[in-house]
Parts: sequence; C-alpha cells; structure tokens
Amino acid sequence: MLSSRMENLHPYVPGEQPKDRVYIKLNANENPYPPSPKVSKALRSAVKNHPEKLALYPDPDSNELKEAIADMLNKTGGVLCRANLEKGKKNGSGATVTPSEFDKIPFVVTPEMIYAGNGSDEVLSFVFYAFFDSAKKLVLPEHTYSFYPVYGGFYNIPLDKIPLKADWTLDKEAMLDAAKKENSSIIFANPNAPTSIGLTRDEVRAMLKAAPKDQVFVVDEAYVDFGGESCIPLLAEFPNLVIVRTSSKSLCGAGQRLGYLVANKELVQAVTTVKNSLNHFPIDFLAQQAGIAACRDAGYYVKAAQAVAFERDEFIDFLREKGWTVLDSQTNFVFCKKDGVNGDAAYKKIKEEGILVRHFATPGIEEYLRITIGTHEQMQALREIMEDM
Amino acid sequence: MLSSRMENLHPYVPGEQPKDRVYIKLNANENPYPPSPKVSKALRSAVKNHPEKLALYPDPDSNELKEAIADMLNKTGGVLCRANLEKGKKNGSGATVTPSEFDKIPFVVTPEMIYAGNGSDEVLSFVFYAFFDSAKKLVLPEHTYSFYPVYGGFYNIPLDKIPLKADWTLDKEAMLDAAKKENSSIIFANPNAPTSIGLTRDEVRAMLKAAPKDQVFVVDEAYVDFGGESCIPLLAEFPNLVIVRTSSKSLCGAGQRLGYLVANKELVQAVTTVKNSLNHFPIDFLAQQAGIAACRDAGYYVKAAQAVAFERDEFIDFLREKGWTVLDSQTNFVFCKKDGVNGDAAYKKIKEEGILVRHFATPGIEEYLRITIGTHEQMQALREIMEDM
Repeated sequence: MLSSRMENLHPYVPGEQPKDRVYIKLNANENPYPPSPKVSKALRSAVKNHPEKLALYPDPDSNELKEAIADMLNKTGGVLCRANLEKGKKNGSGATVTPSEFDKIPFVVTPEMIYAGNGSDEVLSFVFYAFFDSAKKLVLPEHTYSFYPVYGGFYNIPLDKIPLKADWTLDKEAMLDAAKKENSSIIFANPNAPTSIGLTRDEVRAMLKAAPKDQVFVVDEAYVDFGGESCIPLLAEFPNLVIVRTSSKSLCGAGQRLGYLVANKELVQAVTTVKNSLNHFPIDFLAQQAGIAACRDAGYYVKAAQAVAFERDEFIDFLREKGWTVLDSQTNFVFCKKDGVNGDAAYKKIKEEGILVRHFATPGIEEYLRITIGTHEQMQALREIMEDM
Repeated sequence: MLSSRMENLHPYVPGEQPKDRVYIKLNANENPYPPSPKVSKALRSAVKNHPEKLALYPDPDSNELKEAIADMLNKTGGVLCRANLEKGKKNGSGATVTPSEFDKIPFVVTPEMIYAGNGSDEVLSFVFYAFFDSAKKLVLPEHTYSFYPVYGGFYNIPLDKIPLKADWTLDKEAMLDAAKKENSSIIFANPNAPTSIGLTRDEVRAMLKAAPKDQVFVVDEAYVDFGGESCIPLLAEFPNLVIVRTSSKSLCGAGQRLGYLVANKELVQAVTTVKNSLNHFPIDFLAQQAGIAACRDAGYYVKAAQAVAFERDEFIDFLREKGWTVLDSQTNFVFCKKDGVNGDAAYKKIKEEGILVRHFATPGIEEYLRITIGTHEQMQALREIMEDM
C-alpha cells in the first residue's frame, strides 16, 4: 500500500533517547543550560493572559519572531560567541568577550530576509525542495550533517559527495570543480559536523566567488555561535547565498523547535511558498513567543555559549593530555579518537557508566566519538570515566 | 535559482488574518472557546518545573501523547458530540448528550495505531507522500478540503476530481468507479468541507467494501466531533483505512498545532518513516504537554462541541427563516447562499461590519459563504448584520 517514493527513504537517526535509565545526554549536541528566565516568563504570561490564542491559528508568517531574529543578528553581529576567533588565547577560549565587541554586520538584516520554521531540519528540507533539482547532482562533503543525504532521498535529488581532506577540512577545490561540472548547488555545515571545524568567512567568500552564480549555495550555521565565523555579512555580496540557523544549540531551544534561514528575500519567498504548500503554521503560538523572548535576551545566550566554549576547551586539554586526537572545535561538541581504542567499544563503555555520547558506524569516522559539551559537572563525570581509557 | 519542482506549487490560502483592525474571526473554522483550564495549568507547570526540557529535543515519537489520544478515543467512542445523530430532534442539537452515552468502539485503539504530527495538514502531507503514487490518479471529490490538490502538486500526484451530486453529497458510485479503473486510493473529508455534510459510517463501510483493498483509503475527520459519525470502528475490518484528525477544531487547539491519524500499525510506521526523513520532532515539548492534558479532559471539549452544535443549529434556523439555503451541518461551520445575494459581495459587506467569513471564488461554490460557528455573542453580532441581507 506504500508509494514507490518510499523506496528512497533512509531516515536520519538522531541521538538515542533511551528510557531504561537516566543518562547524562552528551549525544545530541543539545545545550546543557535551560532557556533564559525571560523565555519562561514570556511563556507563562502568554498561557495565563491569552489562553484564547491557543485555540486560534498562529501567525503563519511568524512576523514578530522574524523581527526579533533580525534584531538579534544585527545587535550581535551574527554570532554569540567569538571565543575561537580570539587569536593567541589557549584553545581560543574567550569567556570575557561581550556582544558589544562583536564585528558589526556591514548591512542590516531585515525581517524579509528571514524564513522561520519548525527547527532547522524542516527549514533544510524545504531548502532541498525549493532549490535542488532532480536532474543534476548536489555537491556536499562526504562527512557532514548526515540529514542532507536523507533529504536527497526524500526528494530524489542525486548527490555528489566529496571526500574531506586528510586534515578533516573541506576539500574546497574539489567541491568547486564538482559544482562547476554540472552547474550545481553546494551545501555544507560551517563549522562542519561531526568534525567540529569550520572555514573562515574569507574562505567561504572565495568559494562563493568561484561557485556557480545562478545556483543556491547553502551554509548551515547550526554551530556557528560557539566560535565560528558567520557568513551573514556575505549576503550583501552574494544573492545566491542561503544561511541556515537553529535555536536548538546556542539558543537552548531544542525542545521548542525553531530554525530559520537568512537569504535574499526572493529566496525567502520561495521557501515560504514551499511551507504554504505543506503546512501554513509549523511554529505554534507558544514556540513563537519563546523565540521572540529568546532573541530579545541575546546576552543570556552569549554567556551560555561562552560557558560551553570554556568547558569545551578544558575538555580538549584533558583529552589531549590523555593521548586522544581531538580536532580543534568551534562548536559545542568535540570529535575525538585514541589509537588502540575502538570507537564503538568506547561509546558502549561510557554508556555503561551512565553517559551517552555519539558514535557513528559510518566508514571513515568509525574510530571517532562525537561528544557534546555539557555543564562543568557533566564533563567532570565524563572525565572520570575517560581518565583511564 | 529555483528547482523545477516549484512549478507544481499552488499554495493553499488559509482564512485571512488581517492586521488593519480587530475582526470577529468566523473564517477559519477555529473553535471560539479556549482550551481546557487543565491545558493552561499543564503548560504553566511544565514551564515552571521543567525549563530544562525546553533545551532538550522532545520525544520524537510523542509516546505519552499517543497514549492520551488512544485513551480519549476509547473513552469517548471516537466522537465528542453526537448532536446530529440524535434523530428526531430539531436540527439534531443534542446539548444533553454525555460521553458515557456514546457508542462504544468495538475494539481498542492502541498507541501503535496513532501517528501524531504538527497539525493535520502536516499529517495529510505525509500521507500523500507515503501512500499515493505519481503513476496513477488519486480519487477525491471536486469540492473538498482544498489543501488536497496542493499536496498533489507538491508531490506530483495526479488527481481524479469527481463532481459532487446535485444535493452536495459525495458521488460515491462515481468515486468507486474511478478508483477501480486505475486501482487508486481515495481521499475525502467526512463530514466534508466546505459543504458541512457527511456520510454515515455504514455508507463509508459500503465504499470500503467496494474500493480497492490494496490501496489506502483516507477519511479526514477534522470536523467529526461536531456531529458526524467516526469511522474509527471500521479499522477492525479494513486494514487499508487511514483516519486523519486534528486538535484544531474540537480540541480548541489550532494555536498548538497537533494533528494525528489512526490506522493499522504498518501504515502508522510508514508515515513515521516519512516524518523521520524530514523532521524528527515536529511536535515541540509544550505542544505535547498541551495535547496530553487536552485528551485527558475530554469532558470539557464535549461541552464545547455541544455549545458549538447548539449555536450552529440556532444559526441555521435564523438563516433559513431569512430565506437562505443552508446545508444540514454536522460541523462547526455552515455553508449557505441566498438567491439574489452575490457571495463575494455578501462576504465584503459582512467584513465591512467587522466579521470575517469565508468566501471561495472557486467555480461551482462561488455563490456560497462558509461561516464558522462562534460564541453566542459572536453569532448574535453576525445575525444583526445578516438580518436584512
């Protein structure tokens, strides 16, 4: 009774959520801190003062939310934590950086440049639908967010997966060559997952200059707020650039389901048309209120991102001292392995001790663990487990 | 820069939400009553006691919610308000009916038979993806929920639209003939929209007996709780039956975005696979909590549905006395026209006076208005406007 379309589906497998015992969850790159108290207050106030709004369809265009997102991006310069960009500091930890010290975005992000959806996964899916044809290959790195190939299958979009270089960075030249061959679109996460390392804005600019101008070029900035460089300022220069972001990581909002993209308004309109052909109201009334309150309290999330970056750098030091190979992380997770330690066995051992981390059985990265950075207490518990591994 | 796929998109247009002034909204078939106070309480308690849950991914399978839905269906017999089924009563209004008097479902709905999503629009979209092939026509009535053809365009599924009969009922024979021709699936709303009238369960059973057995047969019961007959009991007999429901109407939850389907577990699994290939977490943490609390307080919604049914029947009496043609409604809206009154002009006149109703410019129904049933005060305001139309 299933459509033939179903044969193309190979669902993404998210970090496990076992129910058999209470684990410390360091496997889904969630933020260990709750949202700002102002979010809780806004939610309680909305429920108390406007219960009737729960019975009415929410704003299909999330206009107030889009204004709040644009304001936040303009005020923070597009990233919450510049930790890793502070050259010279050990591992780049910059816990004293404040929003006012950020780069200014050299143009104003307007609400018309924003599309908001039910998590960046839904936003990404609509991007695949709107911009990538079934008649030619989409170019992406071999190892990147593993949901991209799922969307390719969902919409029957062929993929050209380009291996990473030996140092785990993107092979920019090979990706550009592949894109030029079929005049293709490109997509990658920056910083990339699960490798945790990213390209600088100048490197992305150089790619954009060489890439097909009439094809959409997608940069997924899910993790940028923990130390990456946002490409938002490049939107002034490249009308084919689409930047995807999420509230699930730096905005402590995985449970609230909010993602967005920033792009020129024609591309935003196209994604909106896709949304309106599937479900006008993917962001419920309360999620909109939560998102608005979060964006208006960016200072809270700056501090949370800095705390995560600080813990991350401490944890990287620990791992390296214990002989682990760890990539330089600009994200809220680390990607690490140790000679003589089997990745799957290490994952299982840590799970036995009560902590979930992520292991991918994917060829090429099966020796590695991807470990989300939690609170100081959580990381201390993990250090105790890994002390003698 | 758009994919060729975009040419197939003709987005659904929902009831307008103008911002220029405050209107009484009788144009989107929302429920005029807020959710149960127990929903508000559950939401405030979740935000206050578990802010950390807002930062973690929610249960991707909404297991507790599915249990609550199954319990509600089993306890209420699948419908909240049996108003119209009480034969002999004037217009069928049955304000004294209580849940305990409902039909018992002759089998138990289990959580495995339920898929929950972000509103029934998202659920319907996934149903189209999972079950309807691009190689043959899907059979549906010419006038029904106008989002179905949008999904057809979205996934490139050809449609065979069967005209309604002169009395606005479904042409069951013609639909079955069409379905047999290509061994096709069938979809319709029951009660149907925008006509407000439905088939009895026995009529649907007869259709199911004659329809292709190896093709999914979808009944969209968005409005069933206001006086229709649910086909849920037929699931025991027909493994190809899929029943789609929403919290947006009878559960006063349009702002919370919750829809679901009931079907045999293999079909539920297929739709779950579609969801997991697009967005694992379409129902955020708070929406799950709201849905659970709502389903556990079905008695509140029974009363709300009865109040709506009572107002509806009063309003139908009023319209008929004023010379309007009104179909017998089993829903929370009426479908009406008056000789000599232009549908579009009537819509505009009512809007000028501060009330939004729905007018479709669609050929065949352009003389009609679709009017959502509001509170007694809202309907009184509308009666005053329509008094001399």
